[in-house]
Amino acid sequence: MLMIPGPTPVPEQALLALGRHPIGHRSGEFSEIMAEVTENLKWLHQTQNDVLVLSASGTGAMEAGIINFLSAGDRVLVGSNGKFGQRWAEVAKAYNLDVQTITAEWGKPLDPEQFRQALEADTDKQIKAVIITHSETSTGVLNDLETINRHVKAHGEALIIVDAVTSLGAYNVPIDEWGLDVVASGSQKGYMIPPGLAFVSVSAKAWKAYETSNLPRYYLDLGPYRKTAAKNTTPFTPPVNLFFALQATLRMMKAEGLENIFARHDRLKRATRAAVKALGLPLFGADDCASPAITAVAPVSAEAEQIRSVMKKKFDIALAGGQDSFKGKIFRIGHLGFVCDRDVLSAIAALEATLQSLNVEFPAGAGVAAASQVLNAG
Amino acid sequence: MLMIPGPTPVPEQALLALGRHPIGHRSGEFSEIMAEVTENLKWLHQTQNDVLVLSASGTGAMEAGIINFLSAGDRVLVGSNGKFGQRWAEVAKAYNLDVQTITAEWGKPLDPEQFRQALEADTDKQIKAVIITHSETSTGVLNDLETINRHVKAHGEALIIVDAVTSLGAYNVPIDEWGLDVVASGSQKGYMIPPGLAFVSVSAKAWKAYETSNLPRYYLDLGPYRKTAAKNTTPFTPPVNLFFALQATLRMMKAEGLENIFARHDRLKRATRAAVKALGLPLFGADDCASPAITAVAPVSAEAEQIRSVMKKKFDIALAGGQDSFKGKIFRIGHLGFVCDRDVLSAIAALEATLQSLNVEFPAGAGVAAASQVLNAG
Repeated sequence: MLMIPGPTPVPEQALLALGRHPIGHRSGEFSEIMAEVTENLKWLHQTQNDVLVLSASGTGAMEAGIINFLSAGDRVLVGSNGKFGQRWAEVAKAYNLDVQTITAEWGKPLDPEQFRQALEADTDKQIKAVIITHSETSTGVLNDLETINRHVKAHGEALIIVDAVTSLGAYNVPIDEWGLDVVASGSQKGYMIPPGLAFVSVSAKAWKAYETSNLPRYYLDLGPYRKTAAKNTTPFTPPVNLFFALQATLRMMKAEGLENIFARHDRLKRATRAAVKALGLPLFGADDCASPAITAVAPVSAEAEQIRSVMKKKFDIALAGGQDSFKGKIFRIGHLGFVCDRDVLSAIAALEATLQSLNVEFPAGAGVAAASQVLNAG
Repeated sequence: MLMIPGPTPVPEQALLALGRHPIGHRSGEFSEIMAEVTENLKWLHQTQNDVLVLSASGTGAMEAGIINFLSAGDRVLVGSNGKFGQRWAEVAKAYNLDVQTITAEWGKPLDPEQFRQALEADTDKQIKAVIITHSETSTGVLNDLETINRHVKAHGEALIIVDAVTSLGAYNVPIDEWGLDVVASGSQKGYMIPPGLAFVSVSAKAWKAYETSNLPRYYLDLGPYRKTAAKNTTPFTPPVNLFFALQATLRMMKAEGLENIFARHDRLKRATRAAVKALGLPLFGADDCASPAITAVAPVSAEAEQIRSVMKKKFDIALAGGQDSFKGKIFRIGHLGFVCDRDVLSAIAALEATLQSLNVEFPAGAGVAAASQVLNAG
C-alpha cells in the first residue's frame, strides 16, 4: 500500500490498460487515444493552452518548461524552500541563466512579499521568468502560487513557470483564470498511473518567448511536440502503454469531477493532519500552508525511520522518508491520487499500532477518532 | 500483430509484469530489481562498462550519449544515410558542435573508406567523436560498424558513439571487444517491452571526456545516473512498471542466449528477404547490408500504402511505411524482438493474399515457399 507522494496507487482499470499489448504509435488507433487524452488533459489543466506529453519524469518536463522559453544570461527568480525548488535553481544554473533565489526554510512557505519586492524593484524588466514549486513534495508545504502569480502579473514581463507535480489533480490550479504560462506535472502523482509520462502546459505568451529562446535542446524541445500534437502524434516514440492507462484514469477523473477531486484531497489532508496532531506527533509544516498531497511529520518520541520501517514490515504501508538534511528527521504520508477515506483510516490505524509496538506513549485511539471526525464531517 | 520496427511484440510475461501494481522507487524491492536488470543489461551489451537506464525514448538516450562527452565547437563526424543519421546531425548542430557529415543515399550503406580518409586527414586530432547509426531503421540498412570503428580506433582520439537502437539484441554488438564508447538503445526494440525506457552504455574513455564536457544538460546529464546506479537507484523517478517488464524479458533473453538470439534474427531476415524476392518485389537495400531488424520493400506493382492498408485491415498486421521523402514509396517489415519463424510465415502469407486482393500478378505461393526453405534450413 503506497502512501508516498509518488508513485501513487494505481486503480485496476489503469493496471489492466497497462498490460494490454502495445499498438503502433503511428497508427490511427493511437491518434484517437492521443486526441481523447489531449482533450481531457486540457480539461484537467483548466486551460485552452497546449498541454504536451513527454516520455520523461517530472524533472524532464520542468526542465523543458524552463529551457524552451529563456536564453543564456536571462535573469530568473527562483523560489526555493525544499528539494524541488533547489532543483529548479540547479537546472537554471546548468543552462547559464542568471539565477536570483528567494528562499525560505524547509517546512516554511515562500513569502510572496519577497517576490513582490524583487519584481517591483526590477523596473527595467530584466526578470524574464519566475520559477516556483507549488506543492513542495519534500516538506509537504503548499506555496501561495495565487498571490505570487499576482505579483508576476503586475510585473508584466516575466513568465510564471510552475512545478505543479504534486498539486495538479489534487488542488485547484486554474491555469487560464490565473494566467499561468508554463505548468509541469508527472504521471505518477494525481494522474493515478505509474511513472513515465510528464506534462507541460504552455501559454501563448510562453510560445512567443520560445521564438527567441536560444538554449540548446533537442529531445526536450517543445516545438516539435506542439507541431505533432496538432496532428495527434508525437515527435518520438511515446510510451503507448502509459497512454492506455492515462486514457483510463482521465475518464475516471472526469467522472469524479474537479470539485470532488479537490474536496477529497482537502478532506484527506485535514483528516491526516488532525490524526497526527491528536497522536501528539509534531507536524512539520503549518496548517495554512499544508500540501493537499502530502503531510510531513517530525516525530520526537520515536525515530522517523523506525516508524517507517515498522509500518512497512508489519503493515505493508510505504511511507516516504525525509530528503537530504531531513533524512531520518521526518517521515511523509502521501494522500495523493487514487486514495480514499478508508486508506487514510488504515494508515492512521497502522500508525497507532506502530507507535504501540515501539512503546511510545500516546493517546490510544485518538488518531483514528480525530481522522474519523474530519472524514465524517466531509 | 506488430511487424514494425517498434513498438515490437511483447511477450505475455512482460505484459503481466507491466500490469503489476507499482512499488516505491526508493524501496529495497526496487533496488533489487535494478541490480538484477543492470547486471543483465551488461550481459546483453557484452560489456563491463556502465549501462544506464533513462526514462526517455531512444532519441533521448542518443542525445545524452552525444551531449555528455563533447563541448561546444567540438568537431564530430556524423554518418548519415537515413532519418536517424540525419537526426544525430541535427542534435549535434542544436548544441553548436562542428558537424562534418559523411552521407550515403537512403537505402545504401555508409562507405567506411570515407571515414578512414576523414579520420586520417585529421592529423591534428580535431575530430572528437564519430557518431554512427548501426541499423538505419528508416531504410533497413545495416552500416559496417566494425570496419568504421576500426578506423576510429586507428585515429586514437575520437570517441565512437553508436545508435544501436535496432541492432542491440538482434545483431552482435560486442561493446568491449570492439571498444565502443557510447551505445544507445530503446526498450521497444530488441528488449521486447513497450516504449518508455532507453539505455546508454558508457566506456571509461567516454567518462574521461565527460569530465571536460561543457554542454548544458540536467535531465540528460549521465553523471547522476552513474552515481545513483552504483547504489541501485536512479536520480529521478523511474518508470517502475517498465522495469518489471524489463526484468522479465532480460531473463527470457538470457535463457535463449545471445548466439541463438542473433541466429534467430538472421534467419528471420533471410527468410523475409528470400520471400520478398521470390514474390518479385524489389528489396530497397542490398543483401550484404541488410538490417537484422527490418526489411524495406519498394514495390512497383502496387502502391506501398495500399499494401500496408490491406495488410492492416484484412489481416491485422501492422507494417511500417516509408519516412520523409520515402513516404508512400517503400514499406517496411519488422522482424525484431519477440518474433518467431511462424510470425514471418504469417506475414508473408498475408502479403501474398494482399497482392492477390490487389490484383497484382505474382508467383502465387512463391513467397511462403522461399521463406520456408530458409526457415527449414535454419
